[in-house]
Amino acid sequence: MAIVLGPNQYGKAEVRLVRVDRAGDHHGLRDLTVGVTLSGELDATHLTGDNTGVLPTDSQKNTVYAFAAGGIRQIEDFGLRLARHFVDSQPAIHRARISIEEHHWDRIGPHSFQRDAAQARTAVVTADGRNAWVVAGLRDLVLLSSTGSEFRGYVKDRFTTLPETSDRILATSVNARWRYTGLDVDWAASYVDIRASMVAAFVETYSRSLQQTLYEMGRRVLAEHEAVAEIRLSLPNKHHFLVDLVPFGLANEGEVFVATDRPYGLIEGTVQRDDAPPAGLAWW
Amino acid sequence: MAIVLGPNQYGKAEVRLVRVDRAGDHHGLRDLTVGVTLSGELDATHLTGDNTGVLPTDSQKNTVYAFAAGGIRQIEDFGLRLARHFVDSQPAIHRARISIEEHHWDRIGPHSFQRDAAQARTAVVTADGRNAWVVAGLRDLVLLSSTGSEFRGYVKDRFTTLPETSDRILATSVNARWRYTGLDVDWAASYVDIRASMVAAFVETYSRSLQQTLYEMGRRVLAEHEAVAEIRLSLPNKHHFLVDLVPFGLANEGEVFVATDRPYGLIEGTVQRDDAPPAGLAWW
Amino acid sequence: MAIVLGPNQYGKAEVRLVRVDRAGDHHGLRDLTVGVTLSGELDATHLTGDNTGVLPTDSQKNTVYAFAAGGIRQIEDFGLRLARHFVDSQPAIHRARISIEEHHWDRIGPHSFQRDAAQARTAVVTADGRNAWVVAGLRDLVLLSSTGSEFRGYVKDRFTTLPETSDRILATSVNARWRYTGLDVDWAASYVDIRASMVAAFVETYSRSLQQTLYEMGRRVLAEHEAVAEIRLSLPNKHHFLVDLVPFGLANEGEVFVATDRPYGLIEGTVQRDDAPPAGLAWW
Amino acid sequence: MAIVLGPNQYGKAEVRLVRVDRAGDHHGLRDLTVGVTLSGELDATHLTGDNTGVLPTDSQKNTVYAFAAGGIRQIEDFGLRLARHFVDSQPAIHRARISIEEHHWDRIGPHSFQRDAAQARTAVVTADGRNAWVVAGLRDLVLLSSTGSEFRGYVKDRFTTLPETSDRILATSVNARWRYTGLDVDWAASYVDIRASMVAAFVETYSRSLQQTLYEMGRRVLAEHEAVAEIRLSLPNKHHFLVDLVPFGLANEGEVFVATDRPYGLIEGTVQRDDAPPAGLAWW
Repeated sequence: MAIVLGPNQYGKAEVRLVRVDRAGDHHGLRDLTVGVTLSGELDATHLTGDNTGVLPTDSQKNTVYAFAAGGIRQIEDFGLRLARHFVDSQPAIHRARISIEEHHWDRIGPHSFQRDAAQARTAVVTADGRNAWVVAGLRDLVLLSSTGSEFRGYVKDRFTTLPETSDRILATSVNARWRYTGLDVDWAASYVDIRASMVAAFVETYSRSLQQTLYEMGRRVLAEHEAVAEIRLSLPNKHHFLVDLVPFGLANEGEVFVATDRPYGLIEGTVQRDDAPPAGLAWW
Repeated sequence: MAIVLGPNQYGKAEVRLVRVDRAGDHHGLRDLTVGVTLSGELDATHLTGDNTGVLPTDSQKNTVYAFAAGGIRQIEDFGLRLARHFVDSQPAIHRARISIEEHHWDRIGPHSFQRDAAQARTAVVTADGRNAWVVAGLRDLVLLSSTGSEFRGYVKDRFTTLPETSDRILATSVNARWRYTGLDVDWAASYVDIRASMVAAFVETYSRSLQQTLYEMGRRVLAEHEAVAEIRLSLPNKHHFLVDLVPFGLANEGEVFVATDRPYGLIEGTVQRDDAPPAGLAWW
Repeated sequence: MAIVLGPNQYGKAEVRLVRVDRAGDHHGLRDLTVGVTLSGELDATHLTGDNTGVLPTDSQKNTVYAFAAGGIRQIEDFGLRLARHFVDSQPAIHRARISIEEHHWDRIGPHSFQRDAAQARTAVVTADGRNAWVVAGLRDLVLLSSTGSEFRGYVKDRFTTLPETSDRILATSVNARWRYTGLDVDWAASYVDIRASMVAAFVETYSRSLQQTLYEMGRRVLAEHEAVAEIRLSLPNKHHFLVDLVPFGLANEGEVFVATDRPYGLIEGTVQRDDAPPAGLAWW
Repeated sequence: MAIVLGPNQYGKAEVRLVRVDRAGDHHGLRDLTVGVTLSGELDATHLTGDNTGVLPTDSQKNTVYAFAAGGIRQIEDFGLRLARHFVDSQPAIHRARISIEEHHWDRIGPHSFQRDAAQARTAVVTADGRNAWVVAGLRDLVLLSSTGSEFRGYVKDRFTTLPETSDRILATSVNARWRYTGLDVDWAASYVDIRASMVAAFVETYSRSLQQTLYEMGRRVLAEHEAVAEIRLSLPNKHHFLVDLVPFGLANEGEVFVATDRPYGLIEGTVQRDDAPPAGLAWW
């Protein structure tokens, strides 16, 4: 029996980068939070504190800023450039993962912007020196339907008190990540379209369970976007409970609700193509 | 010398209320967080635990939901109804304050909505049995200008290292509260217009200091909205620092910035009419 | 009628300062978050962007770090030094407020420490060039009693559904600020003792309402600490509701509770001496 | 090519449970946040909205409270009871994971407690009907050493500006999870001892990199605790930067630091036995 080092990685998290594009009459604005994760031959620093193969996380941060000088393009492009740079330039590093979250701003003037906090676009790019993988996504897109949702026919056991309902509020905060089959993708257009597919599926699906809505959202993305191999969705069920107004002599026909924070249901699932190429390190 | 009870108040905070309006083909959705604060003859509960005059905070919460059954209208209206109810119905309660924050949703279907987290509209309504006061506002409206801002000519003392700049990013998160002179106001239209005035002032003002921008935002609101007696603005200076890329042999002509969380400057000020009616309990 | 600038102030918020005291075998560690707020003759920067009288918030931050080189002593001392510095050295500045929060660490070795996040000690020091005022405090001290609390005899109105209870959980997060009558105080000892007085009052008071507990906590601080002129307490009622286990054929004799986040009751009050010296700018 | 449902799971997150033990003169207090995750034959609800096999998350929540009526014992025990219940009682459920976080309270009276927010103890229990696995852990244990840490000898590339240092502050927030080889463990004693092993390793290790400290913390846990098969550590490097006081004519010999929030280094690694039994579903 011996005690040994197992899987390990390191990097810089939450590098805040804002880039202004000054070409033209109107400035452009890009607002990213970038994370770097590296792994490889890192036994020495763990076992003896020998840092010969260690690129400091401070240098990783500097690299993010220096690469931004050349422009961002789409976050998937920026992630590919950075991921490849680290594995190509550092002998000890065999894998790099770049995680980027892009924060949206709406234009309100030639050089002025208003933050749109409604959702964040994400990209996770992994490279190993030979191949690269792109997983794009979004998070915190909060959707609600005030009708068109029921929940019935479920298991009743000793601990069940929930009444069946044929009309409820369905609300969730969409967290989605989808894996592209390749790298020859119009990243910006694809993001906008996939987001639209998910929103449309949410709006148009009569929901018998949040699982059904999840599947339909994922199915629709795959049906409408050939470049997507699989999509993973994590959907909290943001419960809205009808308030009992009977004690006050008042009716409540699906009008007054309390929105609760926790506990909450959490529905997670993957929708995929049965002939999708292997995921490789996409989800590493 | 004696130890005595001083000013005191109590209430229910953060009552989460969602109301669906089911009239018509399209549902309406209102999403509020409501707080109740009451004060009056409350010595007994403090001094001896005699609760004869205490309306439980649980009942306050119930009241919020029960009143919602009759519809919300604008949050200022809803606050006025609630504030007056508490002072009128509770002999021991001499003042009531209702604080409401409204969360915005964008319509994406007849019964479907997407949360817009970009800002929250607020109202604080106070009543004392004779009069009522309305302070409206907004918070967390994040604005940024990528040019048109300088900061020069300031005091240099022993501890000053900041270089003067003739071109910087100016960014802030607008927190504003404005007091109306009366209650005969089109609350919804006024909110939209005042918000637009502030945004326009931010966009159009060449800024020599965030204080100047603050004053201009407030001045413009008063100039364009007669119903507003005063406006209080709290503007964090969300610093964006130019990254030094010289060590990497790269230029950085106002393009690559690091956005920092803290510390941050905090600029606070009031703009008011010199003939405004007294504030009364508006800011209680 | 004219539009004019009203009350205004500015400063640097959330300056994070850690100081290591390297004298002796064992290092000392102090961990502060410091805020500076200044006001005075600041019309010019608001009205025209003339920054002649403006000490940049960046210089304020530098001052905090530079003053720390001379040692912190107690946070009240550090605040007094900083507040007086700003009003004494800046002609345009007539008032300065220094807000400090001290984060606790427990020693676990000669040079090693473990963060104690259970509460934060606070101080707010104000100076105007002639006088200075100290308000000390603490926040986020979470206390709970599993019995010894009832809530009965309150108003029942149309919207009351809460049943009276003779035995409930009472829990709160203590936020307290107390004003000292003068500056000749053993700040460290006083803090420890006042904190102990509040905790003892919480533990030993049979509670008929959280208001009664609040008053007793404040009364005890004043009774036991002559240097304190008044104390302001803000106590959220962290509700714990008994879970109904009857549907599952189980008893629940005050054993199983759900802890809820919101809404919550909020009880606020002041306990003071009737002959206390005027507060001056203490609460500015 | 077909679009198919991939891996999926669902459950209830963040069930807040407080249990009072009223036996004896002194009450006991247990404060847990519990999550339930289930997976199995759930295709129908995804594909058609047929909920025949779905145990509502509301019932899962009820089950947590009902089981608490029988006592908690250690969180690992409570997790085992719950996990086995779900897989044993629900034909469609083939795996259950119970995630528990225990919040600490210090006794301050026979029935009174003060919240200790310094760290949270965790347990993740998985069962599949035949076997069960326990992963215990802690999170948010913030440790700091004011000396005894250097960082030198690392890679210098084009983007490196960080100077080597032979004396720095090393601070981290320990997030650790360890897998037990079996279920015959004194959970409470083991937790206390493992936590002590990690703290001792942090205090006693002269650190040449945070990776070295991580490995030594993990190695020591395995060396001192035979019941542990592997431990996974995630250690953010909470940077403390020396403030440059030279512009102010002041020395700073490792005394005045700025504590920064982000970006931060993130060091993650596993330490394991080379003959550990397979992890099975422990990390599912």
